[in-house]
Amino acid sequence: MSAPLISPSRRLRRTPFSEGVEAAGVKAYTVYNRMLLPTVFESVEADYHHLKRHVQVWDVACERQVELRGPEAGRLMQMLTPRDLRGMTAGQCFYVPIVDETGGMLNDPVAVKLSEDRWWISIADSDLLLWVKGIAYGWRMDVLVDEPDVSPLAVQGPKADDLMARVFGESIRDLRFFRFSVYDFDGHDVVIARSGYSKQGGFEIYVEGTDLGMPIWNALFAAGEDLQVRAGCPNGIERIEAGLLSYGNDMTDDNTPHECGLGRFCNTQTAIGCIGRDALLRVAKEGPVQQIRPIAIDGDPVPRCDRAWPLFAGGERVGQVTSAAWSPDFETNVAIGMVRMTHWDAGTRLRVDMNGTDRAAEVQAGFWL
Amino acid sequence: MSAPLISPSRRLRRTPFSEGVEAAGVKAYTVYNRMLLPTVFESVEADYHHLKRHVQVWDVACERQVELRGPEAGRLMQMLTPRDLRGMTAGQCFYVPIVDETGGMLNDPVAVKLSEDRWWISIADSDLLLWVKGIAYGWRMDVLVDEPDVSPLAVQGPKADDLMARVFGESIRDLRFFRFSVYDFDGHDVVIARSGYSKQGGFEIYVEGTDLGMPIWNALFAAGEDLQVRAGCPNGIERIEAGLLSYGNDMTDDNTPHECGLGRFCNTQTAIGCIGRDALLRVAKEGPVQQIRPIAIDGDPVPRCDRAWPLFAGGERVGQVTSAAWSPDFETNVAIGMVRMTHWDAGTRLRVDMNGTDRAAEVQAGFWL
Repeated sequence: MSAPLISPSRRLRRTPFSEGVEAAGVKAYTVYNRMLLPTVFESVEADYHHLKRHVQVWDVACERQVELRGPEAGRLMQMLTPRDLRGMTAGQCFYVPIVDETGGMLNDPVAVKLSEDRWWISIADSDLLLWVKGIAYGWRMDVLVDEPDVSPLAVQGPKADDLMARVFGESIRDLRFFRFSVYDFDGHDVVIARSGYSKQGGFEIYVEGTDLGMPIWNALFAAGEDLQVRAGCPNGIERIEAGLLSYGNDMTDDNTPHECGLGRFCNTQTAIGCIGRDALLRVAKEGPVQQIRPIAIDGDPVPRCDRAWPLFAGGERVGQVTSAAWSPDFETNVAIGMVRMTHWDAGTRLRVDMNGTDRAAEVQAGFWL
Repeated sequence: MSAPLISPSRRLRRTPFSEGVEAAGVKAYTVYNRMLLPTVFESVEADYHHLKRHVQVWDVACERQVELRGPEAGRLMQMLTPRDLRGMTAGQCFYVPIVDETGGMLNDPVAVKLSEDRWWISIADSDLLLWVKGIAYGWRMDVLVDEPDVSPLAVQGPKADDLMARVFGESIRDLRFFRFSVYDFDGHDVVIARSGYSKQGGFEIYVEGTDLGMPIWNALFAAGEDLQVRAGCPNGIERIEAGLLSYGNDMTDDNTPHECGLGRFCNTQTAIGCIGRDALLRVAKEGPVQQIRPIAIDGDPVPRCDRAWPLFAGGERVGQVTSAAWSPDFETNVAIGMVRMTHWDAGTRLRVDMNGTDRAAEVQAGFWL
């Protein structure tokens, strides 16, 4: 059977950069926050090699923003996450697990503190806007919550600093990791953070206003010809090697942050008021009974992981693999899985059932980066 | 450029019927509630003709359920919608607009009243679960809210009664529109409603439990061979002819129910307490300034409507088309648009800008069904 196509509709939203993405010859998409997210340009492997050597421009407009504005914006933001935000200053980005009252993960976004009374939450794939609006309404908080016309454009790869300096000025090289600052583009103020969904280094440009999308896209390509800049996208191999989790793939609302290895972002022991605190205090005390682990799968390149693959030890189910890909650089199948504590030690040998095909696998001590 | 592919991942959830859908040769998907929804089997036109003559089985598992359970389930349900639910009895399905505090549409689901303290909300494409959970938590209501393992399977087309009677018994012919009852399948109780996203008649089977999916799918195909039963899906032509709206295409949270022609489902004048009542009282009094209209587009078959197409009258923007397709039966391009009141009368001639191609269009008195 040939691979299925994606049917276009307004509901699968185009982005301010779609014109550029199409001109660059995008071959496949996924859908993320009801928006098109490119997944392949040349091939997943060719894109991977290029990302590790050069610089790519990624349409990640699907990382929609939830904007909080008003006198209680900071209070609401703290209610939403178990991470202690008291030391956070304007200009910082924090990775913040968001949980419901039972401690189940609803999203794992990046909070961007623009000022005391204005925040963006740069979201993973769930309508976090509806949760935040529901909480703000239910608690009658003095805060406006909406989705602004802001679309992130990522610049990733070892030459990202060189490319960005040409377009936004040399000072951008001084920007520290998970910090942002405001830069000029053709008379417009543009928020740019040193961040992104790869381990190759780079930036995320928060493009405010659809009309600014293609001018910035074009400026990056015009400035980067000799750097071999290309259109790219979050890479399905590189992000697994690096242990970058994907909400909806590697975790869902069934999982606590502690199961996802995000316990260090949960400061429930300190005196912060947040949703899910009671449930997470219990989890923090007892520890999770299963947790995310890097897993190597033996043998030939695995097929696409389009559903959870059960993990077994001696016939007993002990977990599942949720992302997997063949790694050309590490010459093994790299994978992310959730494994029960009885079998999560590095070196534990397991079996994985890949849609009916049995294969040997091994829990790793760390990700491959 | 060839049409782009869809990249599989666990995040784009498979359904209990995916095995059957693949065996039937699905050619394209969309993504709906982070789940795969088939869009084409033979071709959109061939599927359309078959749907109008025979009977189809549709994997609409993506119509996820939000379940409300507990003593305050009914009170919460009424808070969520401006439609008066006081006369609704167990066994009924109600189409219920769901709005935020400003009257903006968050979803347009079907509420299924299983009993006084147990409801399903069968949702369109947005994470309504997060809104309902946020409201229930914020208002500290005594109700459990979650997404159960329930996947609708639709049986649609003029021979739907014949096929369903063979599998679930003759009594199913007596089921009235938007009513449901419980039927036996191989010892399992199954909720079945007379409903569905076509105007050809039919049913929706609320399959409880993933394991029951393929047995019911297979039973329908085994029983319907001489009825020419086929795998199908919501049809992009038929649903526009019939004026069935699509959340995310024809309306978003920018729109009120009144703009969507759903004012008759808003009983804000009566003494119900619901979110958005104040905003909708204002809208009901003044009337909307724009509204959904059927629109015919002149000329050759239009391309796929993958973004809003602006509507113009004498150079002035007066609305937009959000869904469009060539109708073989009506021999015109059928479309759904939002038109300002100055230009919404039937017979008004407009121009539509289809991604740079200008075309004449006309507001219609009614949909084509």
